Amino acid sequence: MSIVILRQDDKIDEWKKALKARAPHINVYSYLEEHPKDDMTMALVWKHPKNTLSRYPNLKCISCSGAGVDFIFNDRDRPKHLPITRVVDPYLASDMSEYVLAAIFSHIKNLNHYKLEQTQAKWSPKSYLRIQDVSVGIMGVGELGKTLAKDLVQYGFKTLGWSNSKKRINGVNSFVGEAELSLFLEQTAILVCLLPLTNKTKGILNKTLFTLLPKGAFVINVARGGHMVDDDLMEMLDKDHLSGAVLDVFHNEPLPTSHLYWQHPKVHITPHIASVSDTASVVPQIVENYERLMSGQPLLNEVSITKGY
Amino acid sequence: MSIVILRQDDKIDEWKKALKARAPHINVYSYLEEHPKDDMTMALVWKHPKNTLSRYPNLKCISCSGAGVDFIFNDRDRPKHLPITRVVDPYLASDMSEYVLAAIFSHIKNLNHYKLEQTQAKWSPKSYLRIQDVSVGIMGVGELGKTLAKDLVQYGFKTLGWSNSKKRINGVNSFVGEAELSLFLEQTAILVCLLPLTNKTKGILNKTLFTLLPKGAFVINVARGGHMVDDDLMEMLDKDHLSGAVLDVFHNEPLPTSHLYWQHPKVHITPHIASVSDTASVVPQIVENYERLMSGQPLLNEVSITKGY
Repeated sequence: MSIVILRQDDKIDEWKKALKARAPHINVYSYLEEHPKDDMTMALVWKHPKNTLSRYPNLKCISCSGAGVDFIFNDRDRPKHLPITRVVDPYLASDMSEYVLAAIFSHIKNLNHYKLEQTQAKWSPKSYLRIQDVSVGIMGVGELGKTLAKDLVQYGFKTLGWSNSKKRINGVNSFVGEAELSLFLEQTAILVCLLPLTNKTKGILNKTLFTLLPKGAFVINVARGGHMVDDDLMEMLDKDHLSGAVLDVFHNEPLPTSHLYWQHPKVHITPHIASVSDTASVVPQIVENYERLMSGQPLLNEVSITKGY
Repeated sequence: MSIVILRQDDKIDEWKKALKARAPHINVYSYLEEHPKDDMTMALVWKHPKNTLSRYPNLKCISCSGAGVDFIFNDRDRPKHLPITRVVDPYLASDMSEYVLAAIFSHIKNLNHYKLEQTQAKWSPKSYLRIQDVSVGIMGVGELGKTLAKDLVQYGFKTLGWSNSKKRINGVNSFVGEAELSLFLEQTAILVCLLPLTNKTKGILNKTLFTLLPKGAFVINVARGGHMVDDDLMEMLDKDHLSGAVLDVFHNEPLPTSHLYWQHPKVHITPHIASVSDTASVVPQIVENYERLMSGQPLLNEVSITKGY
């Protein structure tokens, strides 16, 4: 009856402390220390090392300490019968929304242009856009997309959403599925990708899709690097079909220094910081799920194994 | 019974066309072309050349085509008995508010930091702030300041205002005059200057004032370059008392290429573009005032000669 933490970054101790502070009665181990494998009931994972989950014969749940669970589905070795949960961090959605607003405002007021001009002591005014001039299209209207959509409407942006099922959000024009994708894209001046990464959405940000956006459209990818076909994006930027892109996620992170994105004047890079899971704010959910597991109650925020999110 | 346009940039023709389009019956001249000096009733000015206003013996009004009228008060040659009007452009206030929001979001999400890191292919995540973490203090709560204050409150920012008289705006903590300045400053994490430039406010952004801000405060100047003591700002940035500054206005514009601001890593420059008067949206007010002048009615948006704004 214990939790084992599996992750490859330097945050194991931070999570251990936060869990012990909240629930001193639960045994919590790092997978790197001596621990009784038979006794592990819940695995708390974030980009865990390969071939580790199968070591625990009595595991009852894989608990993801972030919102995106694609790395778990990509682990072929994982025990397939186990339920998977993720966290819904109240800040995760509002942080994401604030980051996307920052990216949008920075774009419409040309702040990246001015920052680069400044390095050359250049005074070069450029016309700006107003909130009322642009429409923002969100691909993926889940927890994060919904919060962003509501915020955008409040700020006065014309807002569109594209998702698998119809969403009813005040002021948001909802488009559904393949059939309505091009209708959604042709009205979108700023495209925000917040899709989960699945076999269906891998590489969805490609030349065919970009061509359906109006000339001068701007792209913001805050979902996963795997959604983007990098060469297609650069081609469409170089042809001036797209006016720019803000990218927070990449196929390989950190983005290799040799990648062409770094030097591209229309690509604006941030190092996967749009929304960072805050240990303190999600630990209560993880403890709650552990207690539910012990008492046989339904788990919170369980991921659909068939949908992959 | 005519209007003469006096300005030194290349926009005289644009204004002439816009005025003629709105009111074909009014004679409009550039001060550079042949025109009957006795017949000029209204001077439409923006940073007009020296010693030009006194040429018109029958002038009845000096109409400023922007919001800031300090350059008129600085013209010692101007006929002192004439009323001065300015424009209140509906977009002027909302544009300003959008620009300041862009500057604030860019600051709390470290976008300028990432843009500079990108030029060196550096992946260096930095903690971000949330809307709820910062308080924004606005110096000058006139037309522009009021619009900004309302927007900030709506978006969840803790908002403070400092002005000559008590302002009642929902959710805004209003501070008045010299006596409450330090109380205002000590609670302000992001300071926005939107004051008019007068003898009283010249050089108000100086070391004494900055010292009253909490350590790590951020400064946004979108009013006039004359408010800022440049050396004091750079000293406080270099000493890490201030964390950064966004400057849209300068003592001399364009900012000379030799100015130290250009290379300062904590100074973020934009070329006086926060809010640019839109000819189309303000011409109706100017025509309206011309008609009022003709029929002897009170003028709209008249500036107080004693207050200087």
